[in-house]
Amino acid sequence: MKRLKLGMVGGGQGAFIGAVHRIASRIDDRFEFVAGALSSDPTRAAASAAELGLAPERSYAGYQEMAKAEAARDDGIDAVAIVTPNHLHAGPSVAFLEADIHVICDKPLAASTAEADAIKQAAHASSARFFLTHNYTGYPLMRQARAMVARGDLGQIRLVQAEYAQDWLTDPIEQDGHKQAAWRTDPKQSGAGAIGDIGTHAFNLACFVSGLKAEALSAELHSFGTGRKVDDNAHIMLRYEGGARGILWASQIAVGCENSLRLRVFGDKGGIEWVHEDPNQMTFTRFGEPKQILTRGGPRMGPDWTRVPPGHPEGYLEGFATLYADIAEAISTNIDNPMLPGLQAGLDGMWFISAAQNSSAEDGAWIHR
Amino acid sequence: MKRLKLGMVGGGQGAFIGAVHRIASRIDDRFEFVAGALSSDPTRAAASAAELGLAPERSYAGYQEMAKAEAARDDGIDAVAIVTPNHLHAGPSVAFLEADIHVICDKPLAASTAEADAIKQAAHASSARFFLTHNYTGYPLMRQARAMVARGDLGQIRLVQAEYAQDWLTDPIEQDGHKQAAWRTDPKQSGAGAIGDIGTHAFNLACFVSGLKAEALSAELHSFGTGRKVDDNAHIMLRYEGGARGILWASQIAVGCENSLRLRVFGDKGGIEWVHEDPNQMTFTRFGEPKQILTRGGPRMGPDWTRVPPGHPEGYLEGFATLYADIAEAISTNIDNPMLPGLQAGLDGMWFISAAQNSSAEDGAWIHR
Amino acid sequence: MKRLKLGMVGGGQGAFIGAVHRIASRIDDRFEFVAGALSSDPTRAAASAAELGLAPERSYAGYQEMAKAEAARDDGIDAVAIVTPNHLHAGPSVAFLEADIHVICDKPLAASTAEADAIKQAAHASSARFFLTHNYTGYPLMRQARAMVARGDLGQIRLVQAEYAQDWLTDPIEQDGHKQAAWRTDPKQSGAGAIGDIGTHAFNLACFVSGLKAEALSAELHSFGTGRKVDDNAHIMLRYEGGARGILWASQIAVGCENSLRLRVFGDKGGIEWVHEDPNQMTFTRFGEPKQILTRGGPRMGPDWTRVPPGHPEGYLEGFATLYADIAEAISTNIDNPMLPGLQAGLDGMWFISAAQNSSAEDGAWIHR
Amino acid sequence: MKRLKLGMVGGGQGAFIGAVHRIASRIDDRFEFVAGALSSDPTRAAASAAELGLAPERSYAGYQEMAKAEAARDDGIDAVAIVTPNHLHAGPSVAFLEADIHVICDKPLAASTAEADAIKQAAHASSARFFLTHNYTGYPLMRQARAMVARGDLGQIRLVQAEYAQDWLTDPIEQDGHKQAAWRTDPKQSGAGAIGDIGTHAFNLACFVSGLKAEALSAELHSFGTGRKVDDNAHIMLRYEGGARGILWASQIAVGCENSLRLRVFGDKGGIEWVHEDPNQMTFTRFGEPKQILTRGGPRMGPDWTRVPPGHPEGYLEGFATLYADIAEAISTNIDNPMLPGLQAGLDGMWFISAAQNSSAEDGAWIHR
Repeated sequence: MKRLKLGMVGGGQGAFIGAVHRIASRIDDRFEFVAGALSSDPTRAAASAAELGLAPERSYAGYQEMAKAEAARDDGIDAVAIVTPNHLHAGPSVAFLEADIHVICDKPLAASTAEADAIKQAAHASSARFFLTHNYTGYPLMRQARAMVARGDLGQIRLVQAEYAQDWLTDPIEQDGHKQAAWRTDPKQSGAGAIGDIGTHAFNLACFVSGLKAEALSAELHSFGTGRKVDDNAHIMLRYEGGARGILWASQIAVGCENSLRLRVFGDKGGIEWVHEDPNQMTFTRFGEPKQILTRGGPRMGPDWTRVPPGHPEGYLEGFATLYADIAEAISTNIDNPMLPGLQAGLDGMWFISAAQNSSAEDGAWIHR
Repeated sequence: MKRLKLGMVGGGQGAFIGAVHRIASRIDDRFEFVAGALSSDPTRAAASAAELGLAPERSYAGYQEMAKAEAARDDGIDAVAIVTPNHLHAGPSVAFLEADIHVICDKPLAASTAEADAIKQAAHASSARFFLTHNYTGYPLMRQARAMVARGDLGQIRLVQAEYAQDWLTDPIEQDGHKQAAWRTDPKQSGAGAIGDIGTHAFNLACFVSGLKAEALSAELHSFGTGRKVDDNAHIMLRYEGGARGILWASQIAVGCENSLRLRVFGDKGGIEWVHEDPNQMTFTRFGEPKQILTRGGPRMGPDWTRVPPGHPEGYLEGFATLYADIAEAISTNIDNPMLPGLQAGLDGMWFISAAQNSSAEDGAWIHR
Repeated sequence: MKRLKLGMVGGGQGAFIGAVHRIASRIDDRFEFVAGALSSDPTRAAASAAELGLAPERSYAGYQEMAKAEAARDDGIDAVAIVTPNHLHAGPSVAFLEADIHVICDKPLAASTAEADAIKQAAHASSARFFLTHNYTGYPLMRQARAMVARGDLGQIRLVQAEYAQDWLTDPIEQDGHKQAAWRTDPKQSGAGAIGDIGTHAFNLACFVSGLKAEALSAELHSFGTGRKVDDNAHIMLRYEGGARGILWASQIAVGCENSLRLRVFGDKGGIEWVHEDPNQMTFTRFGEPKQILTRGGPRMGPDWTRVPPGHPEGYLEGFATLYADIAEAISTNIDNPMLPGLQAGLDGMWFISAAQNSSAEDGAWIHR
Repeated sequence: MKRLKLGMVGGGQGAFIGAVHRIASRIDDRFEFVAGALSSDPTRAAASAAELGLAPERSYAGYQEMAKAEAARDDGIDAVAIVTPNHLHAGPSVAFLEADIHVICDKPLAASTAEADAIKQAAHASSARFFLTHNYTGYPLMRQARAMVARGDLGQIRLVQAEYAQDWLTDPIEQDGHKQAAWRTDPKQSGAGAIGDIGTHAFNLACFVSGLKAEALSAELHSFGTGRKVDDNAHIMLRYEGGARGILWASQIAVGCENSLRLRVFGDKGGIEWVHEDPNQMTFTRFGEPKQILTRGGPRMGPDWTRVPPGHPEGYLEGFATLYADIAEAISTNIDNPMLPGLQAGLDGMWFISAAQNSSAEDGAWIHR
């Protein structure tokens, strides 16, 4: 087993998701972190690189320089993780794809349709792959759920109920210098509020598990935070292919919710429920039979995608790590893994964001795909 | 303490909710059940009456005869419980109101707007009172929640998320002679499907706890059961007075849900969550503080509306009984109790049903009140 | 259906369990409450009787007078509920048994072995029956559990883990005039502390569900409350017939526990867990298969012992009522119901109490039956 | 930040806990895995080393050779993880301590008192440190609990209830070639059954959180598995210093329990409960106030020992990793961390095992320390 060489754009001191990507890349030991353009501030970039043990010559001032330099090295990076704010996804993605370096990009795909298109074109033109870290698909029970739906355990799918609720934006903290809140509520940097930041996760997971594409939606987006410029709450009704219906609720002002992603899928033969805050179990009911509690790695469950025996909780970082492990495998073997979210998931998410924004602007008119 | 004399229309052998009303009326010993028109089938009416220990002369063949006879007796009934299918609420309600006998009617108010109007007029003309058994308002923690919202514990209300999910109509059992399913899915008898049967409960509870009136809604009703003539699933977006928003989901085809009524209310200072299947606790979060588990009769909770100490679960029948006890008190003292659902709650529910049906027919157009 | 006539000894104003018995007797409408010696204080007895609607001539100053008078009446009571403190169980029990009136006595059987013996002899000599309200056996899922153990769903039983934890005696409130605390911590009135008050419930339920008799125990009783004269915490190791082992923990000083009765039974083929605070569900695991959530009245569960459909919670009062309904049936039909706790359950409980006290006094020596 | 160099004894192909240690050492990037004696089978040792990317010259055939060779290298390991069966803890521990290489040993300390003594002497003679991976102490909420007890949030501690239940040894799988079961149920290799394998974890955690030492215990050990040579179930009553009492239950035959470690601590002012299977929350009750749900990283909780925001579950591997991170810090700074379990925790565990075995052999006699 040879470790892949990993670079990173963004993720310097003070960032959140960059550290998550780095831990996730280490857990299964398939990557070695060797290069980065960790901050647009050169001083911070250098300090961050030193702290993380990068060789000084592989700490770059900008992603363009990094893409060129790494592409030129014999021991250059195999893949780059892009963990910048949304409006800075497209630039680095295009640069590394053009350099034929695999891209592992955080979600959502971009802050605008134009940026998304640029990534799309670059991905099509590149020999490298593009991955999008919709990390909740890495939870073993969500993969189990997808497999159960696919093999018919739930019958014909009728309902897909997804919600993702947080409360950290209850107050308008973006006005008090909270760095994460500031860019996430700035439409220029994020492109959308709750709908983009967490709504896309819920939407992606709903489609991933149900195996269904959304055909239309009707949305009401709302900003409750005083002076807030993006939505912090979204109510969405959905129509999926094959006649299934769904609700999706995303909120950043639901007091008492820390990171409450919940998915319920109901078919004409069975139903499942999974709640992110207790991710090592999922309930499954065959119609007319007692509800079952399926546990990660437990009875009748595959040992797949899990590192420790049932009853030893795995969590957010392990789910994220599973994406990294699968990405390493896909890159190393050059075999596609249909479970890995990539460009199409990103484009689906962009449709979801813009359709929700358009529907809400038109008083809830149904927007068809 | 003198027991009130109670009569009943409907609730004979094979019925469901009639027995619930009778038990509820007995728990706090404020009523004595003495008369009934228990079935439209005379044989079944007489047999049911005998089984329940009614004097033969107070078992009536029809509600009109009963209203007249009981009004004429010195020891005639003080109140009548109406527990017939929806389309048979208006007839008896009007008859007893005209006889100045208090009416305790099951929900929803009626199967049509015309019937609702008839009840409304009779109620206005009568010296008797009209009560509607939205029994979930009798749960101690729902009354506690209402009081907490009213005194500002949650701050300005932003979100009201209500859902009521069941799975008993997953298959089209109304076509196999299932009595309860048959009338509830027959639009002539019920006037509506899930939206009327359980959606009105969720809607009533959302308004009861939040203290808010709904101003508009956008709905998508759907029938998943093969050949079903009424909705068995409803997705509804709501706008409440004061700017609050809400989702309401009612379903009878959500496999694995037995009787899952869930209410979540979020303000700018706090949030609560209550799940009917474990009704003796409710979580409450003040923003920025740890979530609390409030228990019926527990610390800092009033002893009101509860019969046994904390940790001794009360349930559905006790909540229902609390309505009956409060009704007895309101009748005996002739003092209104604003917590008791009555005509206005019924009319609100009728608006909710028809608005949802109209919105759904117009592809989700917002219907304003 | 004819209602049985019920009398009561104890249960006047300020009492707790008397009201529970009265509600329980009403729920299924098999009893009519007509006579009582509700308090040893004549004024309180009369006031209580008036409040509860007893005819004045059937409110007695003492239980002896009551037993004689009721036995002499044509319409005398069929059964009496004895809801006095423990040391006042024997007197009334003997008096009514001698009058051939059925006795429904609260637990534990008595405050001393001598008193228990007196009841035993009177019961053997009487044509009337003796019932002991170990009410937790009335919960539908506990009866379901017993049936599952009996039919072998769990295989050979290996472990029976029972606990009953409360916190209301954390502080020595018996010294501040708390009436319930006062008699329950007075060894002369109660005969024992936590071990008698709640330990006997846990022990009874463990035996009821497992179908096993205890053969020996080793105990450590302890009083944490300052100046307390009886145990408020008990740790007990048990050996059951057939080689099963068990732990039993009873506590009244476990801060945060309201009325936490929990039972877990494990065999070589399956295991169950039930927690009183959420009594409408029980988990069941067949070894090597996913855990199931069995619900009261739910899939594959009998409709027995339940009044409302699954998902409509029943609780403490309904479980208690089931005992009353079964007692009515046993009296009316003159057919024994092996599920109803009676004299033997009471004597078992007395052994449990005295063995625990003796073992604890001998530094945990195993006491064999 | 310089990574420490880590070696490993044991943990080759087919092992369980070795991989856990390796992941744990990587998560916070404080270690680099560079050397090993991964198996007593040379072929397997070499194959395992190659698979894990060790340089061939640093894959050793035995731990003695490894200790010498690594001690002699300029770039020799700083610390060694010992992840062999219990009876093979002492040999390597002594060898590396004598070579002044820090030791990170899995629990329990040893399979016999003699072995434990050998480690103790070697540790005292060495300049290197000895750590024991009682990993449950690495869970943020267990550290929070310990801090809360220490600062008096629970008042004077009265009860410490610990349990650790599994079901994987329900059947005698050690007789069917199950590798993990085979050595863990072989008294020569393990020294004890459930009491050593998981009981020591529960005991360690009870002492860690309560801050109390056990003074005496009374135990009943039992083997339910046919032909099993060690205990698979243990019931233990404990007396802690200061008058606290406790129960400890450890089982490997409790059907339906995957890895159910549960700790409850009650004082005269408060109580806590933590269940390992949902490790990101803990309940806390101040007497007379509503129960609180404390969440990892949540309101009023320190950000210590946690990598991702509240609501993003961490689990078993992260708790284990926290030990590794703290060990790295202790080694790098040469500052003791009183929260890290080491030799004393190991000796406490050995007392616990032998006292339980002795007590059980003497029919539950109390064994004092």
